[in-house]
Amino acid sequence: MTTDASAPARRTRLTPEREQELYGAVIDLLREVGYDALTMDAVATRTRSSKATLYRQWKSKPELVVTALKCTKPVHVENVDTGSLPGDLHELADRIGDGSDVDTPLIRGLAHASATNPDLAEAMRQHLIEPELSGVRQLLGRAADRGEIDAAVPAAEFMPHMMLGAVITRRLLEDVEVDAAFMHRYIDAVVLPALGIGRAR
Amino acid sequence: MTTDASAPARRTRLTPEREQELYGAVIDLLREVGYDALTMDAVATRTRSSKATLYRQWKSKPELVVTALKCTKPVHVENVDTGSLPGDLHELADRIGDGSDVDTPLIRGLAHASATNPDLAEAMRQHLIEPELSGVRQLLGRAADRGEIDAAVPAAEFMPHMMLGAVITRRLLEDVEVDAAFMHRYIDAVVLPALGIGRAR
Repeated sequence: MTTDASAPARRTRLTPEREQELYGAVIDLLREVGYDALTMDAVATRTRSSKATLYRQWKSKPELVVTALKCTKPVHVENVDTGSLPGDLHELADRIGDGSDVDTPLIRGLAHASATNPDLAEAMRQHLIEPELSGVRQLLGRAADRGEIDAAVPAAEFMPHMMLGAVITRRLLEDVEVDAAFMHRYIDAVVLPALGIGRAR
Repeated sequence: MTTDASAPARRTRLTPEREQELYGAVIDLLREVGYDALTMDAVATRTRSSKATLYRQWKSKPELVVTALKCTKPVHVENVDTGSLPGDLHELADRIGDGSDVDTPLIRGLAHASATNPDLAEAMRQHLIEPELSGVRQLLGRAADRGEIDAAVPAAEFMPHMMLGAVITRRLLEDVEVDAAFMHRYIDAVVLPALGIGRAR
């Protein structure tokens, strides 16, 4: 991996490798101190960057944090296309349940911090939430095109609430983190029947 | 309202009015400083009680906080019995959506604190979550007895996840707190169809 930490503030963009290195440091700091206590100074020191470089590239702490999270993060619904709705949802379950992909304590901490940091909330919405919602809409659109669901099925609007709600409430209610097996059962029991697919009663 | 703040540590239980006064002070402190920064000293000072009284009655900070929350709190599923499953769920929606009953920012803050305070998590489970889960089981049991749902419908297991998930994810995804109108739509679109009730596809 190329590191050019010694490079002075340049006009050119950072290399992808250097970006990844910076994002990794941001995530480490988030885990260590949390969002509120994380400073751009600490990121600059940890990564041997100048603060000018950080601000030129990412504009603000919330933008940097959210971009870092996006690059290490969850599910990337937009890349899921197995050819069937049940297939797509169970592929999502595998991605959500794979602890190496989704750092739920980290995300929960950021969700909590966003309640008192409007800039962070806006950055999360723009960079993390909206792309996933758009991916969900595409996934459901393909299912409607294939005739698997009625395009007007009322539950479609609540797909994001159903899926994210399962991830978040598992630990609150059961004191265990979500895993793929739980998500597979939840999809078969709740999501597909709500969309009008699955076992007859 | 009777106040006996000047009473020395007594063998008798506190009056219900005095208990309510203490719980109100605990909730105020939780809103002001959060769980981690709340101390039994501050509760004692605010309520002009002795710490001995507080510990004798509630044993620990998590027990006191959770008992206080329980007495100001949410939904009391166990008291919902309208005679039909849709009626019960929509009654829950009204209770959840009435902001005067459910203080979601406060609950979210406690949920977050519980991730790093196992004693708090245990107290929340015992005093807040388990009674509601028991209420949900009774509600579904009555629906099965009336023949409204199949007692073995797979979604029944996930009722708590569906309902709590909707409450929590509304703000994360839409940046607005949950209200009764949202819960009514969600129940008709997701919960009832998942349970095998409602519109044909």
